[in-house]
Amino acid sequence: VINLYSDNVAPVAPEVMAALERANARITMSYGNDEFTREAKAALEAVFEHRLALVPVPTGTAANALSMSLLCRPYGAVFASECAHLHTAEAGATEFFTGGAKIIALPAPDGRLDPAALEQAISRIDKGDRHRSQPDVISLTNGTELGTVYSPAEVRALADVARRHGLAVHMDGARLGNALASLACGAAELSWKAGVDVLSLGMTKNCAMGADYVIAFDEARADEAAHRAQRYGYTFSKMRYATAQLTASLRDGQWLRHARAANAAAAALATALRELPEVTIAHPVQINQIFLRTRVEVAESLEQHGLVVAHWGDGLVRIVTSWATDEQMVAGAVRSFKNAIRSAR
Amino acid sequence: VINLYSDNVAPVAPEVMAALERANARITMSYGNDEFTREAKAALEAVFEHRLALVPVPTGTAANALSMSLLCRPYGAVFASECAHLHTAEAGATEFFTGGAKIIALPAPDGRLDPAALEQAISRIDKGDRHRSQPDVISLTNGTELGTVYSPAEVRALADVARRHGLAVHMDGARLGNALASLACGAAELSWKAGVDVLSLGMTKNCAMGADYVIAFDEARADEAAHRAQRYGYTFSKMRYATAQLTASLRDGQWLRHARAANAAAAALATALRELPEVTIAHPVQINQIFLRTRVEVAESLEQHGLVVAHWGDGLVRIVTSWATDEQMVAGAVRSFKNAIRSAR
Amino acid sequence: VINLYSDNVAPVAPEVMAALERANARITMSYGNDEFTREAKAALEAVFEHRLALVPVPTGTAANALSMSLLCRPYGAVFASECAHLHTAEAGATEFFTGGAKIIALPAPDGRLDPAALEQAISRIDKGDRHRSQPDVISLTNGTELGTVYSPAEVRALADVARRHGLAVHMDGARLGNALASLACGAAELSWKAGVDVLSLGMTKNCAMGADYVIAFDEARADEAAHRAQRYGYTFSKMRYATAQLTASLRDGQWLRHARAANAAAAALATALRELPEVTIAHPVQINQIFLRTRVEVAESLEQHGLVVAHWGDGLVRIVTSWATDEQMVAGAVRSFKNAIRSAR
Amino acid sequence: VINLYSDNVAPVAPEVMAALERANARITMSYGNDEFTREAKAALEAVFEHRLALVPVPTGTAANALSMSLLCRPYGAVFASECAHLHTAEAGATEFFTGGAKIIALPAPDGRLDPAALEQAISRIDKGDRHRSQPDVISLTNGTELGTVYSPAEVRALADVARRHGLAVHMDGARLGNALASLACGAAELSWKAGVDVLSLGMTKNCAMGADYVIAFDEARADEAAHRAQRYGYTFSKMRYATAQLTASLRDGQWLRHARAANAAAAALATALRELPEVTIAHPVQINQIFLRTRVEVAESLEQHGLVVAHWGDGLVRIVTSWATDEQMVAGAVRSFKNAIRSAR
Repeated sequence: VINLYSDNVAPVAPEVMAALERANARITMSYGNDEFTREAKAALEAVFEHRLALVPVPTGTAANALSMSLLCRPYGAVFASECAHLHTAEAGATEFFTGGAKIIALPAPDGRLDPAALEQAISRIDKGDRHRSQPDVISLTNGTELGTVYSPAEVRALADVARRHGLAVHMDGARLGNALASLACGAAELSWKAGVDVLSLGMTKNCAMGADYVIAFDEARADEAAHRAQRYGYTFSKMRYATAQLTASLRDGQWLRHARAANAAAAALATALRELPEVTIAHPVQINQIFLRTRVEVAESLEQHGLVVAHWGDGLVRIVTSWATDEQMVAGAVRSFKNAIRSAR
Repeated sequence: VINLYSDNVAPVAPEVMAALERANARITMSYGNDEFTREAKAALEAVFEHRLALVPVPTGTAANALSMSLLCRPYGAVFASECAHLHTAEAGATEFFTGGAKIIALPAPDGRLDPAALEQAISRIDKGDRHRSQPDVISLTNGTELGTVYSPAEVRALADVARRHGLAVHMDGARLGNALASLACGAAELSWKAGVDVLSLGMTKNCAMGADYVIAFDEARADEAAHRAQRYGYTFSKMRYATAQLTASLRDGQWLRHARAANAAAAALATALRELPEVTIAHPVQINQIFLRTRVEVAESLEQHGLVVAHWGDGLVRIVTSWATDEQMVAGAVRSFKNAIRSAR
Repeated sequence: VINLYSDNVAPVAPEVMAALERANARITMSYGNDEFTREAKAALEAVFEHRLALVPVPTGTAANALSMSLLCRPYGAVFASECAHLHTAEAGATEFFTGGAKIIALPAPDGRLDPAALEQAISRIDKGDRHRSQPDVISLTNGTELGTVYSPAEVRALADVARRHGLAVHMDGARLGNALASLACGAAELSWKAGVDVLSLGMTKNCAMGADYVIAFDEARADEAAHRAQRYGYTFSKMRYATAQLTASLRDGQWLRHARAANAAAAALATALRELPEVTIAHPVQINQIFLRTRVEVAESLEQHGLVVAHWGDGLVRIVTSWATDEQMVAGAVRSFKNAIRSAR
Repeated sequence: VINLYSDNVAPVAPEVMAALERANARITMSYGNDEFTREAKAALEAVFEHRLALVPVPTGTAANALSMSLLCRPYGAVFASECAHLHTAEAGATEFFTGGAKIIALPAPDGRLDPAALEQAISRIDKGDRHRSQPDVISLTNGTELGTVYSPAEVRALADVARRHGLAVHMDGARLGNALASLACGAAELSWKAGVDVLSLGMTKNCAMGADYVIAFDEARADEAAHRAQRYGYTFSKMRYATAQLTASLRDGQWLRHARAANAAAAALATALRELPEVTIAHPVQINQIFLRTRVEVAESLEQHGLVVAHWGDGLVRIVTSWATDEQMVAGAVRSFKNAIRSAR
């Protein structure tokens, strides 16, 4: 069976496993007061070309929840795309951790917010109107939940709207490596240089075991972030294992190598699938996710033809590749589609 | 100046003032352990033809917030119209008091939820999907925020959808009296008989000084409601003044008389305004609210022609009548419009 | 029956009822955009000799809850006496409205915090220790829950400890009038001049119908306080009735006159009760509350001898006088005690 | 340097690292829909001799927070020892995740709650009193924060008090293995058979990398627990690595072997330290923690004599051994103490 259900079904990359072994070689102080954590922060600052606050957290939801609680007042509002992970897949975490902020979900063709629509949505709320949750944050996901990316200029355009209205900018970077690989741009360029204040950085989908990170480009947020993380139950006592994974992923651009491999596999697969009858690619394939529409019967028979994917209903299918998706798997996935189409006639 | 900005600009009705005087005539135990409160509960049960739990609260927002906290789990979702007061005018109270539930706002032409659209929206969320806030409640406002009403059959149709999916039904009755007067139906018929579990009953806009009420038709909710109300800061120590107002409003159908007067004033005014050039009534006028569109210049000059209304932007104007709106005020409002139209040419 | 169960069993004073009538005499804008509210703010600023932010709220619990949410971070701690109303009688409101702050309750002989004990308690928490809720606020009640007062110098001594550690100072003034009357000092002297940042001002127990107030001596807090009040369901649409009560209470020192009357009644009653066998006054009687110990049989038979008081268990009895407690009631209460003692032999 | 600062400074045990490698050997479904997670649940049910709900969480704080949110209403109260981790070291997590419950901390000599004191504390709160947070849970830590244990009979005695008053029983088992090893009793005997409803099970301090677990002995809690865990950001997408660690730890009683080793090291060290002048063991040493008092100068010079311990102020020192503490380390620690005592004269 070929499993392209999600990038989190893939194993952890060898260099990450090696980093865990190294972190395990000796006794080390807890709660991040250790060299592995200091090393990770330094590595991250080198990659992002900026001083920053680093808070390891257990999951991507945790990263977003902590980020929102830092940026949004209880009586604030978060503007995000209608398919934003924090709106559709976190069971109200933003609402909970902020103390009751409101997410204002905007239509987002191909998963991308539109600056003009954002401008309009923010403007619709009178600043200071006590009856309304007050605009505090925009959150954009890059690469998006629909497999597309924002370029640095596109991020900047949204951030400019945010700045004009006094809002902070959050980026959900659960697949940031994939976006960077797709855009062939630098991490600084796509984040703080484009106006991002706080970043949820995910290495779990990229290659790691399960440590996500909140990164604030204003180091002064470090204290509040650390206090909140502790009481949210996010602060690993054996933090060294979480931060050693980060260092290993960043070293020599490993995460970008993995992201390029995943993106390339998705591109190759999309190219092949485009040729097939009854398959329509639903969104531009710019990272490691393919959304396609096919007949319901085809979609439903994929698994019996050896391919596991995610079903979003009515024949909409999501395929996600990873660092571990090789050519045979791509070829096999195409074969499964062909067989499913043939037999579903 | 004629002020039709809102029904809460009106004075308190004479019988309510008299009730306050009566409640003030002697020393009385606090926190609702008093005869005025017992009397109000009995009066309410007579009007609604049902045993019920009664919790006085200070505002309509408080009534909705407490109701939601009773009906919706922290990981739950509330379905409501996109113009629902609890979504657009309570600054995130529902999100806060529930511990982070999500409001799913649905398009609502003329302010009314559509059963088929509701059915579809609920069905879109897989029951048990841990990533999604779970459908728990529908909240409908009657009379609606746009001046229309749901008939008992229309409430029942929505409640049937809710029941089928295991959701509770909340009615925001900030203007329930106006709806009852408009429909000429009974309070029981429009509430629990139509499937409503918990009701926010507002007398403030009707005729009273400022006591709203949460009513649960399942008396077993009384304890939890009382505990929550206390910690929310809603439980008046001198509760007798809040409950005496309720009794006085209900007695001999005073609240319905006031509602009929307000509705009639709105109807008369709408009839006159419909005749005017450059004025379009935006929604059916079924209670005491008129929404109309006119030229921005006309809207903006109304005040200098002696009429205060609420401006919703781009020439959309809201007019609200009350128990205290008399024929002279209606005539004066029409005159103001005529003058504004003439001078804005 | 003579009811000295609490000061909130008393009627509303005549000047307050008159103020309600005046506020009812005409149509007035809602949500505090009215002359009654502006007048109350001005009256308050005159009494407190300071610019301030005024937020009417429905109850004393609401006042404390809003105050704490303004002063204490979610990861903060509030230091208060072990008998503080916000710790023992608000069902977790502080914990809820702050987003999970911790109340650290300190022993308080006669209801008063001790500066040295406060100093020690604050010092025990390492500043910046992420595992611990961080010291943010001290809250002191004046007059206290046990019927005593803090002098301006005593408030200042506590505020100095707070300042040294960077904490804010809150005063729960549910019976502030009684404290001022007892100390014969000015409102400014006992509040901001003594280091108080935010005050819960209660007029309900003093003479009013049920409007309490949050007062921040830093006007810059007005916006946040108003936003929070709205979403907490505290913002009366017909705010004029709440603020008109405040103006009437403050005018010509009416609240102080009422407080003096209540205090005098308590003093007279305490003097008489001290003479009785089997009665021990438990705390200094400095305002309008008397705590006394007697035999359980005596305590329990008071009601059948015509006196209603609050029973705190094991023969501990609380008696509260009010503006409406006259000489006959005092004499009657003494008689009830005498009869109870006699018959309980 | 010998580091006995905490048990979480120790490396991860070899069998746990091997389990991670095994879990990494192939592509596996995410969010716990995998064989490693099913295997862990089965292993746990075998050890605890009971069907149960298992929810992996990232930290001990997370385990307690989720547990409390399951057992305690927002208007509830949790009874715990004054040194309970959830009261003193989680920065208000319980208050936050419950929606504002109150922790009532009880004196606990040697870290152990006393059934009579618990009985009294619960009884002091009138059931149904709306002003008071209502008793909902007792939480006891076993082994305790002060290095002692509760026997099954002692747990049962506390649970009996809880049951009589309708409270649920939570056990913080961050060091449950150490308690079991110390008592030489079974996991079932010390948990559900003794009346425990929900257990925070910690393997991190025992031997693992950083996965703690919430265990509910009523499987019907599984759904709510899973929903809450997801929105709290606790649900690992690559859950297999967390659950594989659990299986490896439980297999052939590895966790008990590690616990026995840690306990034995603490016992040996305590025995040696008792002989030293100026050292007083503060609490019975029943698990892997030693609390001792010495002169401040001695305490402060330990580090320069090669021993890292935790300083609790005024010469109170905490020493924690782990599975990795060998005889040389024990001997070295004794040497450090001797040298520190000698040189601090």
